[in-house]
Amino acid sequence: MGERRKITLSTGDFPEDLKHMSNDELDLLTYEIRDFLIEHVSKTGGHLASNLGVVELTIALHTVFDSPRDKIIWDVGHQSYVHKILTGRGDKFSSLRQYGGMSGFPKREESPHDCFDTGHSSNSISAAAGIAAARDFQGENFDVVAVIGDGALTGGLAFEALNNAGASKSKMIIIINDNGMSISQNIGGLSQHLSNLRMSSTYLDIKKQIKKALKGIPRVGESLYAGVEHLRDSIKYAVVEGALFEELGLKYMGPFDGHNIEDLTTALMLARNVEGPVVLHVLTKKGKGYKNSENSPDKFHGVAPFNPTTGLPLSTEDGFSYSQIFGNKLIQLAAREERLVAISAAMIHGTGLSKFAARYPQRMFDVGIAEGHAVSFAAGIAAGGYRPVVAIYSTFLQRAYDQMMIDVCMQNLPVIFAIDRAGNVGADGETHHGVFDLSYLSHMPNMKVLAPADGTELALMLDYALTLNGPCAIRYPRGEAPDLTTVYQEDYGPINRSKVIFFGEELMILAVGKMVSVAYEACVRLRQQGVSVGLVNVRSICPLDEEAILQIAKQAKRLMTVEDNVLQGGFGQQAAGLLSREEVLLPCRHVAWPNVFVEHGDDRELFGKYKLDVDGICERVRDFIER
Amino acid sequence: MGERRKITLSTGDFPEDLKHMSNDELDLLTYEIRDFLIEHVSKTGGHLASNLGVVELTIALHTVFDSPRDKIIWDVGHQSYVHKILTGRGDKFSSLRQYGGMSGFPKREESPHDCFDTGHSSNSISAAAGIAAARDFQGENFDVVAVIGDGALTGGLAFEALNNAGASKSKMIIIINDNGMSISQNIGGLSQHLSNLRMSSTYLDIKKQIKKALKGIPRVGESLYAGVEHLRDSIKYAVVEGALFEELGLKYMGPFDGHNIEDLTTALMLARNVEGPVVLHVLTKKGKGYKNSENSPDKFHGVAPFNPTTGLPLSTEDGFSYSQIFGNKLIQLAAREERLVAISAAMIHGTGLSKFAARYPQRMFDVGIAEGHAVSFAAGIAAGGYRPVVAIYSTFLQRAYDQMMIDVCMQNLPVIFAIDRAGNVGADGETHHGVFDLSYLSHMPNMKVLAPADGTELALMLDYALTLNGPCAIRYPRGEAPDLTTVYQEDYGPINRSKVIFFGEELMILAVGKMVSVAYEACVRLRQQGVSVGLVNVRSICPLDEEAILQIAKQAKRLMTVEDNVLQGGFGQQAAGLLSREEVLLPCRHVAWPNVFVEHGDDRELFGKYKLDVDGICERVRDFIER
Repeated sequence: MGERRKITLSTGDFPEDLKHMSNDELDLLTYEIRDFLIEHVSKTGGHLASNLGVVELTIALHTVFDSPRDKIIWDVGHQSYVHKILTGRGDKFSSLRQYGGMSGFPKREESPHDCFDTGHSSNSISAAAGIAAARDFQGENFDVVAVIGDGALTGGLAFEALNNAGASKSKMIIIINDNGMSISQNIGGLSQHLSNLRMSSTYLDIKKQIKKALKGIPRVGESLYAGVEHLRDSIKYAVVEGALFEELGLKYMGPFDGHNIEDLTTALMLARNVEGPVVLHVLTKKGKGYKNSENSPDKFHGVAPFNPTTGLPLSTEDGFSYSQIFGNKLIQLAAREERLVAISAAMIHGTGLSKFAARYPQRMFDVGIAEGHAVSFAAGIAAGGYRPVVAIYSTFLQRAYDQMMIDVCMQNLPVIFAIDRAGNVGADGETHHGVFDLSYLSHMPNMKVLAPADGTELALMLDYALTLNGPCAIRYPRGEAPDLTTVYQEDYGPINRSKVIFFGEELMILAVGKMVSVAYEACVRLRQQGVSVGLVNVRSICPLDEEAILQIAKQAKRLMTVEDNVLQGGFGQQAAGLLSREEVLLPCRHVAWPNVFVEHGDDRELFGKYKLDVDGICERVRDFIER
Repeated sequence: MGERRKITLSTGDFPEDLKHMSNDELDLLTYEIRDFLIEHVSKTGGHLASNLGVVELTIALHTVFDSPRDKIIWDVGHQSYVHKILTGRGDKFSSLRQYGGMSGFPKREESPHDCFDTGHSSNSISAAAGIAAARDFQGENFDVVAVIGDGALTGGLAFEALNNAGASKSKMIIIINDNGMSISQNIGGLSQHLSNLRMSSTYLDIKKQIKKALKGIPRVGESLYAGVEHLRDSIKYAVVEGALFEELGLKYMGPFDGHNIEDLTTALMLARNVEGPVVLHVLTKKGKGYKNSENSPDKFHGVAPFNPTTGLPLSTEDGFSYSQIFGNKLIQLAAREERLVAISAAMIHGTGLSKFAARYPQRMFDVGIAEGHAVSFAAGIAAGGYRPVVAIYSTFLQRAYDQMMIDVCMQNLPVIFAIDRAGNVGADGETHHGVFDLSYLSHMPNMKVLAPADGTELALMLDYALTLNGPCAIRYPRGEAPDLTTVYQEDYGPINRSKVIFFGEELMILAVGKMVSVAYEACVRLRQQGVSVGLVNVRSICPLDEEAILQIAKQAKRLMTVEDNVLQGGFGQQAAGLLSREEVLLPCRHVAWPNVFVEHGDDRELFGKYKLDVDGICERVRDFIER
């Protein structure tokens, strides 16, 4: 080899330079990337463990494939940091997940290397199949690669796509990034199947065979293809059978060591030469290369800024989060109501159910990333006389819309939906904001929809929901719960009715959930400034507390609804429909998230930008009154 | 055997008497049931072919199991007619699917033998798993059986449930009713897998083995169990391996002849003795025993009243249905726009795409019962530069809510949704009415939502949608499309804007889609009676034609919105929100389906009951004006 500059993370021109790097350089690169990830994510927060796990896989992908001509689709997308580093976005990492900065997920707007935006789970194979179909129509021949975790593979959508891909002749590569976890431990028959493949005794032999066969063949370049072509036939009978995939009509190859770049590169070369759809099974370790995250990959799945040495978070919250309050309350309720069971979809920790799961392991069902099943399963449990509580984030519950409608609401079954991360979630952005739930829940017949404004209300609403003989959804935001005890002078009143906090002559604000505290602060400030503004905590969005709203509206000069949901189909429009129907005609304003996909960023900046913070509410009130 | 009365369909006390019938009596019963089905369904209309296919299976189920103690869940549910006949509802068949009569689907309200309401697909395994979990908590030991078609098995929800059932120890029986079709031909790798199992050479041998082993054992009764217990171990290695199910952790047994009651009874006995979840694969012929439906099972899937001898429908519609107009228009568009492709989810015939599929087979994708994949796949195709049109019924598109939101709308991809069967569908009832689509579509950012009021408008809207660079949903009802050409005096104007049909001084009606014709007739009648009422065809529900609505509202004395969607989140509330925000304050009424699950029945009766027909609109207008 002639003289050339040494290629490192800082000197390289990626992804192009990957194709020219020596094994030693590549090895060094993996260390550099891991250091880079830990350094940056410890400052900005973000998804760490999943990205540490795909360093070698991402390097191998960009070595073998020619992005953006070849299309790489990252299922879920939070494991795309290494991909971002290797496609010219390393310098943007200080702005990761910040307002105006780089997204934590693939974004087509951000780079031509991001060919499909992801964020929810299990859709990458469908998208890849679509892109491959369009390619085939156009007679082009680039490669389409979906990278999907074993956790995301439990989502039914992935199965629908495998089933169709298996029947299609369309060439595509499906990489199963198997780390044995989704966010926490995986559950289900599929997981066992993958585990069996992992344990197979032939695994090492195959690796040896491939290595032997490839010895002397240059690692990259056209000449390899011929070799691979021959090799394919000779090894195809030796490779462990992934019966489940083969039975669906897909070629299965694997498992391969996901931390060995040489093996991965070879495997990708092989896969690339398969006609039709092929599944490549790759074994990785979530959190690889950073001791703190290797030990607790679930804690380092999504993290706030932390000390890289100790792994401990830089700041701790003083109060209780809604999730913690929910989890603690459910333990209390379970002691009292033996028919109560909890269901989660790969989110036991995030929804605050860890303690419940430890205390009542038999009464805790984690169905994996399978929200539809979680809900239909809950309907079955309720039909069987038990009382399921389904705890899922607002944005992911969208995936069970039909099951809520048909299996739960149509049969008026007593399923409680504990909907965490409602409203704006901040740094995760577009795909994760829970700003549609009031809209998608409010038109489901029989469904009650409640939103607590503080931690006590959440607990009281859970008590109330358990007294009902039909479905009830309680939606609450991410983060710390305020305490309105003193505001209420310790009188919470009936929890399914509106709560008037104070009256105002100029304007009455009807606020929902998290926005009650914001509106309260705004009211206090405005009242100090002599503006007579009142505030009502709406609490029940469905059914509306019609009596209270009409009574307030009849006395009020102006009305303002304030909610952390989108405008369309939210509380404000429903209130407008009520007032219109009852001919209570008075000037109104409807404050809500606009009907756009709100970007990522710090909560405060987003609430500020969209005038949903205290300043924004004050400004809107003044504009309304003084116009 | 002693003397006893002969048990026939008319003399028997079912399901109890099934356990005492001779083989000859059972054989006769199958003929009686098929005659009964053909006689009644030819008069009332309904689902025929699927019910003809499960006569023996249903008899065997009610012979072996003890309903309602044991729970039988019918996936999709339209194949539950035989179950209804055998659980005391034979005398209700003259009212099948009629207003106030018996439902065409299982209904818990109707009978204790219906333990879970179904109607949409692929949820039976989840529900069964839930009921089984509740049973286990209670320490009871009844059996839970899910009967699911091979078509419904392609839905991802079924896979999510199999995956969880496979990992659970909970005892349940999953019967795959494999007729090789969902509504039309099945597609996908799973279908091939089942087909391979069907073709297996060991199939007949196993049957012989079982028969031999069981010879001399009484067909029913406790004594059989011991025999079966021993038999189980001896045959388990002989039974064809259903690798896909076994890999997911479920025991697989089959395939069995689904038209041989003796074999089925034996197989169910075996399955009943398996600890944990077991899959029983049963082969049936859709339309079995009636030549017309055996020859064209898809035509006899759901039928209008027909002549039982010829199989021909009793009445034919004169005009064109919306589905036909859609199909014909798509063929035209495909000729002009070579990037146009069509996607359906097992509904090619129903959505009017048969001719398109014959003309452009390469450009027609039928993904099976997999609405989520249909939409994400479409997103991929659109991202690849092509122009997918996704044709799915309104009620089933609910199953792809999240994929529309995240994969299509978030990326603002140009996917056209052709939403058939919007509004009330009549006889299929609760699970099939498409009365939620305006609510679930209107809050999706970037989504345009249009509703044509006649066939020409549907065609023009498709032209318009194809000019857009983002998603567009066009929703239209079942049945014949009216023709408003003369009403419009041949001037349709811009298709994405409201169309004023005439002005009225007392009241302006803003009507959506199908309701335009109804409101038009009401207006004509009222105007003849001297009531000055005007009418506007809204056309675009999202975005609202704000300019037109505000202008009309400012000039009007009263406003009435009329739509065939539920009230919550529909057009009326959005209009109310607009008027409220703009302080255009006038008396309004919002006419819509109430927020309940509307029952089944003839369209006319349902529209009448809920005052959505011409009489109802006239009455509402008079009430409003004269109050």
